[in-house]
Amino acid sequence: MAFGYNGKILRVDLSREKISIDSPDDVFYRRYIGGEGFVAYFLLKELKPGVDPLGPENKLIFAAGPVTGASISGSGRNSVGAKSPLTEGFGEAEVGGYWGAELKHAGFDAIIFEGKAESPVYLWIHDGEAEIRDAGHLWGKDTGDAQRIIREELGDKLIRVAQIGPGGERLVRYACVINDLHDAAGRTGMGAVMGSKNLKAVAVRGHEKGKVADAEKLKELARWLIQNPKTWSWAHDLGTGGAMEAFVELGNLPIRNFRDGDFSNAKALDARTIKDTISIGMESCYACPVRCKKVVKIAQPWRVDPIYGGPEYEALAALGSNCGVDDLKAVCKANEICNRYSLDVISTGDTIAFAMECFENGILTDIDTGGVKLNFGNAQAMVQMVEKIGRREGLGDILAEGVKRAAEKIGRGAERFAIHVKGQEVPMHEPRRSRALGLGYAVSPTGADHVHNLHDGSVASRNPYFEKLAALGILEPVPREDLGPRKVRALIYVVDWCVLDNSLLMCCFLPWDHIQKTEIVRAVTGWNTTVWELMKVGERITTMARAFNVREGFTKKDDRLPERFFHPKTSGALSETAVDPAKLEKARSIYYEMMGWDENGVPTRAKLEELDVAWVAQTLG
Amino acid sequence: MAFGYNGKILRVDLSREKISIDSPDDVFYRRYIGGEGFVAYFLLKELKPGVDPLGPENKLIFAAGPVTGASISGSGRNSVGAKSPLTEGFGEAEVGGYWGAELKHAGFDAIIFEGKAESPVYLWIHDGEAEIRDAGHLWGKDTGDAQRIIREELGDKLIRVAQIGPGGERLVRYACVINDLHDAAGRTGMGAVMGSKNLKAVAVRGHEKGKVADAEKLKELARWLIQNPKTWSWAHDLGTGGAMEAFVELGNLPIRNFRDGDFSNAKALDARTIKDTISIGMESCYACPVRCKKVVKIAQPWRVDPIYGGPEYEALAALGSNCGVDDLKAVCKANEICNRYSLDVISTGDTIAFAMECFENGILTDIDTGGVKLNFGNAQAMVQMVEKIGRREGLGDILAEGVKRAAEKIGRGAERFAIHVKGQEVPMHEPRRSRALGLGYAVSPTGADHVHNLHDGSVASRNPYFEKLAALGILEPVPREDLGPRKVRALIYVVDWCVLDNSLLMCCFLPWDHIQKTEIVRAVTGWNTTVWELMKVGERITTMARAFNVREGFTKKDDRLPERFFHPKTSGALSETAVDPAKLEKARSIYYEMMGWDENGVPTRAKLEELDVAWVAQTLG
Repeated sequence: MAFGYNGKILRVDLSREKISIDSPDDVFYRRYIGGEGFVAYFLLKELKPGVDPLGPENKLIFAAGPVTGASISGSGRNSVGAKSPLTEGFGEAEVGGYWGAELKHAGFDAIIFEGKAESPVYLWIHDGEAEIRDAGHLWGKDTGDAQRIIREELGDKLIRVAQIGPGGERLVRYACVINDLHDAAGRTGMGAVMGSKNLKAVAVRGHEKGKVADAEKLKELARWLIQNPKTWSWAHDLGTGGAMEAFVELGNLPIRNFRDGDFSNAKALDARTIKDTISIGMESCYACPVRCKKVVKIAQPWRVDPIYGGPEYEALAALGSNCGVDDLKAVCKANEICNRYSLDVISTGDTIAFAMECFENGILTDIDTGGVKLNFGNAQAMVQMVEKIGRREGLGDILAEGVKRAAEKIGRGAERFAIHVKGQEVPMHEPRRSRALGLGYAVSPTGADHVHNLHDGSVASRNPYFEKLAALGILEPVPREDLGPRKVRALIYVVDWCVLDNSLLMCCFLPWDHIQKTEIVRAVTGWNTTVWELMKVGERITTMARAFNVREGFTKKDDRLPERFFHPKTSGALSETAVDPAKLEKARSIYYEMMGWDENGVPTRAKLEELDVAWVAQTLG
Repeated sequence: MAFGYNGKILRVDLSREKISIDSPDDVFYRRYIGGEGFVAYFLLKELKPGVDPLGPENKLIFAAGPVTGASISGSGRNSVGAKSPLTEGFGEAEVGGYWGAELKHAGFDAIIFEGKAESPVYLWIHDGEAEIRDAGHLWGKDTGDAQRIIREELGDKLIRVAQIGPGGERLVRYACVINDLHDAAGRTGMGAVMGSKNLKAVAVRGHEKGKVADAEKLKELARWLIQNPKTWSWAHDLGTGGAMEAFVELGNLPIRNFRDGDFSNAKALDARTIKDTISIGMESCYACPVRCKKVVKIAQPWRVDPIYGGPEYEALAALGSNCGVDDLKAVCKANEICNRYSLDVISTGDTIAFAMECFENGILTDIDTGGVKLNFGNAQAMVQMVEKIGRREGLGDILAEGVKRAAEKIGRGAERFAIHVKGQEVPMHEPRRSRALGLGYAVSPTGADHVHNLHDGSVASRNPYFEKLAALGILEPVPREDLGPRKVRALIYVVDWCVLDNSLLMCCFLPWDHIQKTEIVRAVTGWNTTVWELMKVGERITTMARAFNVREGFTKKDDRLPERFFHPKTSGALSETAVDPAKLEKARSIYYEMMGWDENGVPTRAKLEELDVAWVAQTLG
């Protein structure tokens, strides 16, 4: 077994209350790495096609990676995956914090949950042991209370808890899984899958720090980070969301359901404002000096409990500007409720923005909203609506289904305001600005997802990122507006690496370049791995996720963007330009072909064989 | 400009006697690297389709790589390329020694020869200067005499000379270019192209050792080699050809025109025998401690001059066992004549073997041979025939055309004994043994070529090479007999790197793994390059060479193996097994698809775009 892995994957059959351990070989670990890779493997290998995402036949996978738990920044993360109740396709999300490292220290690399518990339970994993425990007393509790009770009853304050709140319990389709009360495996509704299995929480405690192959080299790489604070001081000082005004000017900030370009008080939502007013410090992840996560405390008009952390950029934009809201405290409260209830801030914000636009267009009325004036900019209404979604109360019950299903239920043309791809709401980065981002959203296996598309390959020669991309052979600047072949190529390379990051579970904010990250993997595992091998792992996993969706019935026409992005914003920076649908369609074809997929977006047998997963071709029939 | 390059490419118009200098930018160098990459670039970019390989419109390129001339083993090499008079397609060969390093020290990265000199000339390059000089007095001279005269007349004993002998002058289609009298850019007839241009030699002297980006790191890598002699002692002790008997047992040794499996006296041709009898030492390449090259001296019955070095494995097998000859001294003499006349030992040996089989089958008679009993095993006849080919005398004039054209001229069914791919004779590694080698020969842009197929991806788990291949993601053993998708994948990865080696001009015998070689390139150039980027360079160049052949009219049916390999050997290890043509054809289809080529083997536009050479698609029309 390579260093960096325990060689043990926990398998928990909730229906039969049976726990067992898989012991994969070294080749399995090297081929699928961890995180998203494990998710893709187990979903394709073990799920029957067409299962109900909220039924017992779905499986829920928690996975760490090789580096997780090692003494190096970015090693606290884990991934959560299942068939998505939001998209009905490949579901997966990553999350930072400490839980992933704790799982590794407790002796396991991943957990596969199968079936459904008869009544609410939680799993308690400690130093190689695992037990299913009753969670009747926890069900219905906010995440904060649940974590406190679990720690108390197990008698250890350092237990790490991944869990759902009432939103997950009530199967809000975009419910997330919350670690440490403030870190979310946010996208694709993994919290709803957890809820559907009557699984409240996974509590973990471990004391065995695994050995790494080359501790000296790993220290050297950790030292480099500490000695180069300029490369991460932006994150240390402000975290995300420190350029809200610039984002308005550039057109990158979603405003009023992705409709508008003007937003006069963006400064109110800026991380600098938070720092100067309501911040009480910054929180870290395991073994990381960067400390990029905001913690806010507010007494009134809303009480915001700092145990729930504070809003990241995605929350500030989704619950703020995209709802037309510039009331920072309201956004912080909404963010806190999302963490209490385990709701994805992006989908929550987008869904409320959708409802607001419906309301302003008379598609939803006072009757639907129970009297709430659900206009853009109504901070009070926005906060109320988050709570209603979490409780599935009134209109909240419809909105808890996500914009796609909500629009179908509402009818009356609401669909045109439902900004999603494959049923997942669009994150806070504007495809009208970075054109390949639109392509990335369109083809992403998880639907619109910025964690599969952290960068779209646009790069100017003066950008420090340019030098990094050269390591992948992107030798010349590729402008944002470009959507031609060289941009598609850049997107593919960037996304393949991004998916690798999701599998290694290494944080994408950290400044290590491709060479250093590979050196980290090498130092931990002892493998003689290379950027070539790791890029191919990324491509392999991207293609496996694609294959899963093909098997679930997705076709080329699901690789689309919402109509809205084909029109300019009503004002501001992007009021005269938009995504050209013909160019997008052409770029999609080029993308398929470059990926080795056929003209319908189905991975070819030869490509699957070249990626060393010939068995996947068989699952496609 | 990156370290490792001069930023200057010499362009010599022999027709107009005009010399100029190209100054490509850094992106050019990083994208095409050097050697075979430069050849592919300039042939595709500058040659009109369909030109006569022996006409003035062909261009002859001498190219070094980034590492060439740096203080590290394997950095003395250069590449020679042109449209091949042997295959009428992509022609290219590499050669070791000192000449490449000298060219770099003289201030140039490559030379492009255009047109044809009116009368024989040679080029004299020295410290940034270049002049075309008369070679009337050199024409017709053996390489040994020519080198002596050039050094004398230029007054410098350390001048390095790449040149042709009378074989190249007489346009023997498989004439090679000889460096330092004993190192050959052997394959695809580059010496004939040189002869067709009335270019006798390129003499070089330079004193400017370029700077490298990270001299300390380069030293460390050089030190690793010196401190790990076990990794190269095989080469140091014996050079190639130290396992002749084992090769008979394994079936790898070509015997009597690839027909037979028995060869009782293989020991007579073994490098160990050479060491114990006629060796007078070992010769080195620039900056290399390995010293793998034999030097032999023989007084009688043939006088073999040690200035011409000694036979490598390819010569021992092609002129020896493949002609049924076990007379070591005869083989050494034949090898010496090849170096005097600038003939490729492989094609020369194979062509004589072909003639011998024709003779034994009555297709050639005493009348054709001028009374020579051209039977397998007739050492005297073999040596005579080499001389006749070099002089184009009698039957030699026909055999100087290579087996394909000779068989056409001879007729009478001779074709079945012509063992070639695309007109180039097959090297000394048996495709019936390593099945993917057969595929490699079939699809190689240069025809049958072991320098495009140094390894076919077969690997057992106990093989030290297995660990190396893991760095490319080949995680499980792939047996020799396998010709399925996972073997095709392994072949592709291995060949892509091999073509990269041919472009970096790094010696493939040296034990550095993919990571170390990448570190060498990084230390020299200062680029943040990775195994990913370099593998993609290999893939790019393989695909460009393919595109060149497509443009020249090659089709799928040229990607074939000689019929002989579909039948077992008459005896010995492979007397009961052979390449299955149906499996080979299927493997070829898989190869095309994995390469991103269409079902006819034509690179798709999307693949060319993904490889960052969209312009190549335009040359395909």
